[in-house]
Amino acid sequence: MPELRRDPIINRWVIVAQERAKRPLDFVQAPMPPRAGFCPFCPGHEEKTPKEILACPAFDPGAAPADWILRVVPNKFPALVQEGSLHRELHGLYEKMTGLGTHEVLIETPVHDQSFADYTGLHVEKILWAYRERIYQLSREQDFDYVLIFKNHGQEAGASLDHPHSQIIALPIVPKRVSEEMLGARDYYDANERCVYCDMIRQEKDDPQRVVLENEAFLAIEPYASRFPFETWILPQRHDPHFVNLPDDRLSHLAMVLRETLRRIKVLLRDPPYNFMLHTSPCREAPAALPHYHWHLEITPKLTRVAGFEWGTGFYINPMPPEQAAAYLRECGKDHAGTGRVP
Amino acid sequence: MPELRRDPIINRWVIVAQERAKRPLDFVQAPMPPRAGFCPFCPGHEEKTPKEILACPAFDPGAAPADWILRVVPNKFPALVQEGSLHRELHGLYEKMTGLGTHEVLIETPVHDQSFADYTGLHVEKILWAYRERIYQLSREQDFDYVLIFKNHGQEAGASLDHPHSQIIALPIVPKRVSEEMLGARDYYDANERCVYCDMIRQEKDDPQRVVLENEAFLAIEPYASRFPFETWILPQRHDPHFVNLPDDRLSHLAMVLRETLRRIKVLLRDPPYNFMLHTSPCREAPAALPHYHWHLEITPKLTRVAGFEWGTGFYINPMPPEQAAAYLRECGKDHAGTGRVP
Repeated sequence: MPELRRDPIINRWVIVAQERAKRPLDFVQAPMPPRAGFCPFCPGHEEKTPKEILACPAFDPGAAPADWILRVVPNKFPALVQEGSLHRELHGLYEKMTGLGTHEVLIETPVHDQSFADYTGLHVEKILWAYRERIYQLSREQDFDYVLIFKNHGQEAGASLDHPHSQIIALPIVPKRVSEEMLGARDYYDANERCVYCDMIRQEKDDPQRVVLENEAFLAIEPYASRFPFETWILPQRHDPHFVNLPDDRLSHLAMVLRETLRRIKVLLRDPPYNFMLHTSPCREAPAALPHYHWHLEITPKLTRVAGFEWGTGFYINPMPPEQAAAYLRECGKDHAGTGRVP
Repeated sequence: MPELRRDPIINRWVIVAQERAKRPLDFVQAPMPPRAGFCPFCPGHEEKTPKEILACPAFDPGAAPADWILRVVPNKFPALVQEGSLHRELHGLYEKMTGLGTHEVLIETPVHDQSFADYTGLHVEKILWAYRERIYQLSREQDFDYVLIFKNHGQEAGASLDHPHSQIIALPIVPKRVSEEMLGARDYYDANERCVYCDMIRQEKDDPQRVVLENEAFLAIEPYASRFPFETWILPQRHDPHFVNLPDDRLSHLAMVLRETLRRIKVLLRDPPYNFMLHTSPCREAPAALPHYHWHLEITPKLTRVAGFEWGTGFYINPMPPEQAAAYLRECGKDHAGTGRVP
């Protein structure tokens, strides 16, 4: 019998359709052919992107495909722009605001056909360092209300260029999805005087059926009310509302868990399209005011289609119980752990 | 400069990226090839579906491809099931509930390769009649909390069979998306003592730049904060919280507006994938208690991809200003109105 499960933070129900359960390979789609043509993100084409904001030099420039290993550049086709001033305007019922913000692209590697799962741990650490650096700059120095970091991997997940990249968007307002999550977490805190994410970590570790992997600083789980097959959350074991506060020595712990999770997803599901999104607190909120919110990262492989049911209800139908997904991802770790080999 | 626009009901912001604006044909995707193989919804295969719940006989059986023009049958692979009793269970932080409900399929026509835009007005009226009938039965007689009617057209929009069909799902709880919309509408009512949808209709008719078409009973508009290119809402001009109350003589008015809207979308965008969802009140709510809520229908063509930005923020980036979309759809009506011809 199908089960309705409630997300404890934002009260979203998910239908876990056990009877429709499939094996991982049943979700594999025919891959989209790589796009042909000129790539503005490849080495040698640096002048095709706007001037870079941040770059990391190659560890060993002589042996590397370029003298950089990552670059952050303004998006040439930004969703929001930095010029002008913020003003709001009413038209009868309706309200609009100038689209002030920034939209940056983080080119993750000089190698066109690599993916996150293929990077070294040190390389992933550098990418995470750059995420932290850009949030710091955009929030502390430029006074934006929210900075969103996300990645679209694969055409089906919305990547408009094949060359691996992440995106950084700074916004003049706190997004709805973030407020909703923070409100839900605050309600829980008000009722229980504990952070809901900290409680979740405790409960998942007590009965680790949904745990994918962990190290001393991070935990990767398939959430109880997973919307999508193989949806995975990575949570810091120590409470902190802001990703930007992550100390240097923990960047490597996060790099290890993120890279290994994406590697298993790649192996098990044959390099599926996915999105990942950093969920962190609004820039202006002081950590002391946020005992209820706990930053984390959400990875959502794109294996099913969001359709009329989901749009009409805000519910999701998930044909893969998270306990089974976690078992598959743990099993996949056993086969390949430590070898770094991606078939 | 891009514009941020706020939806007046659920406070969702949309980025209207004027600079990225495209022409309608820029959104056209290569069509997916039709699926080969056995179709359980075609005439002659009636025994392949579970026993029918409702059917409409053909107007002229001798001249028709089948003795029925539509059939409602239980979904053979239901997301929710009717057996068992509703119970809730707590596991620490988490809550679950038996997946009680119904999941029905409305086979819209005996003709395998027709689509909504091709039906006669009378045929669309019969489909709408069947929607109303099923909501009535499921809410009044079977005591469900919410009945959702929706349609996925095209593989990219989540249709798992090509033969035209709609879906009817009855749920034991009011979906999040519905509560959110009702709450937003109530806030507006509390502040203004008027229905926000009634106000929207007045404002759109005063300055009809976003109006697609209208008749005496219904209005089709591109909403001010459209999430998607060519997103279209159809609203009854007279306030009513419940679709199920729609009188017989207005079914034909709705059929006319819905069919003509879908015909223009088909012509202009070369038969794109789309979803439509009926937004109506929870079954148990008495109309007198709902001066703030106004049932309507939302059509969302699937021309752009929902990606990390949308998932991370709950915002949407729309490269087609609704004023332009409405102008294209009005223009399309001029060319083809009344001929029923679909190139």
